[in-house]
Amino acid sequence: MEKIRRNERMSAMLKILTDSPNRIFTLSHFCDLFGAAKSTMSEDIDLLREVTSTFGLGKLETVTGAAGGVRYRGSVSREDAREYIGGLCANLSGTERVLPGGFLYYSDVLSSPEITGYMGRIIATEYFDTEPDFVLTMETKGIPVALTTAFALGVPLVIARHNSRAYEGSAVNINYVSGSSGTIQTMSLARRAVREGTRALIVDDFLKGGGTAKGMVDLMHEFNVTVVGMAFVMETAAPEKKRISGEKSLMSLSIRRIGDEASAVVKPADWLED
Amino acid sequence: MEKIRRNERMSAMLKILTDSPNRIFTLSHFCDLFGAAKSTMSEDIDLLREVTSTFGLGKLETVTGAAGGVRYRGSVSREDAREYIGGLCANLSGTERVLPGGFLYYSDVLSSPEITGYMGRIIATEYFDTEPDFVLTMETKGIPVALTTAFALGVPLVIARHNSRAYEGSAVNINYVSGSSGTIQTMSLARRAVREGTRALIVDDFLKGGGTAKGMVDLMHEFNVTVVGMAFVMETAAPEKKRISGEKSLMSLSIRRIGDEASAVVKPADWLED
Repeated sequence: MEKIRRNERMSAMLKILTDSPNRIFTLSHFCDLFGAAKSTMSEDIDLLREVTSTFGLGKLETVTGAAGGVRYRGSVSREDAREYIGGLCANLSGTERVLPGGFLYYSDVLSSPEITGYMGRIIATEYFDTEPDFVLTMETKGIPVALTTAFALGVPLVIARHNSRAYEGSAVNINYVSGSSGTIQTMSLARRAVREGTRALIVDDFLKGGGTAKGMVDLMHEFNVTVVGMAFVMETAAPEKKRISGEKSLMSLSIRRIGDEASAVVKPADWLED
Repeated sequence: MEKIRRNERMSAMLKILTDSPNRIFTLSHFCDLFGAAKSTMSEDIDLLREVTSTFGLGKLETVTGAAGGVRYRGSVSREDAREYIGGLCANLSGTERVLPGGFLYYSDVLSSPEITGYMGRIIATEYFDTEPDFVLTMETKGIPVALTTAFALGVPLVIARHNSRAYEGSAVNINYVSGSSGTIQTMSLARRAVREGTRALIVDDFLKGGGTAKGMVDLMHEFNVTVVGMAFVMETAAPEKKRISGEKSLMSLSIRRIGDEASAVVKPADWLED
């Protein structure tokens, strides 16, 4: 391979780092790839750190120690997060998206690669330091945002199901009380999906009473897994008291009735205002 | 802002382009962002095109015409795709992942952000030219790979469900015959999820008889939507004749019995060998 210029090397390096977020690459890895000296690579990394910071493209971090190297985190500043979620809230508020029964239609938001990609980065930013080993969600609507969060954290995604299926193998089932309907439901997870003694971040689309979330916490106890945090795309303002606590939701929802018409009021969560 | 160096500009530009794959950015967009002349930006793009090609990081393409500009596609070469899928097949083959009933456990593969990310790029590479407006999948296990495919194509993801739910609003329901069980099932999609006259790429995790896939095709007809293609992570070798045709699956599965033991034989699909 002919000599690679700094601008080419830097571009390729940033692409490789951002393709595997939160993963530590050793300096030697890049030295070998580009045929460059360690001192040169260090300079490249310093420049890239400036670039990502200047253009709000996340953070390049140097990790010292035996397992050290450089890693990319798609961190979102609190200010950028607030602005983005604020824009989403404005789109979701009003009468147009309210369905009969007072439900809010936002499936399109929950399955948008672009929007869930950014929400995943916002959630990951809050939980990098808790070092989860995997992200847990409950099928179905939270899967996209749970996947993008897992991607940003550089960890696998694990999906709990309503029923155990033949193609999942032996499973742990638990019963939980659905917060919204009050009925007893089953949650199931394949035995081989999770290793005992690891750490989970719970991510889901919607939090109302907290029954399903509480079910996921109980399920993790069955696997001897520590829950390091819980994040939701949307939570309802009422009931104020949920069956779980300490969660971080991105938006809060209340439905107001004005005469015959129902209108959604969607606001960024309080913690985003800090 | 002080003057930005070429190496910084190029790194930032590649990051921005790859964050929104298959989206056309005008040259003026980058001229404004970096305060640089068009000729300078053109040179940057030429250099970036070389870099991405040299390191197998996808393709930078210049699009001419009134709506022209530059776009990034995470294209995967046929050779790289074959090698990657070949590695996956080796991991999935053997006795360890075969469950009672002859099912293969590969939920962990289907929810891995890294693996589904790459599979999404492989599938997108095959369908860029068909210009789908959205990706359609049927809940649940195909959602991650459908999301990453949609991301790579720069289009939304639409998820059909087993039943219509209150929070989806008015929906179109169709009945279909499940290929594997022979039972009649329901598939449902919110009216507002899809615009009439658009184009869909169907992506799902598993193809056996093709009943569910046929159901998705029928569902799209109800919306007056053209199906431009169908892609699956895995299809079974038997039955050879499916209810649909023209699909591209990444892997083919057969279960062999040797005495009491069942073993999975997973191979890259034939079209990857071309």
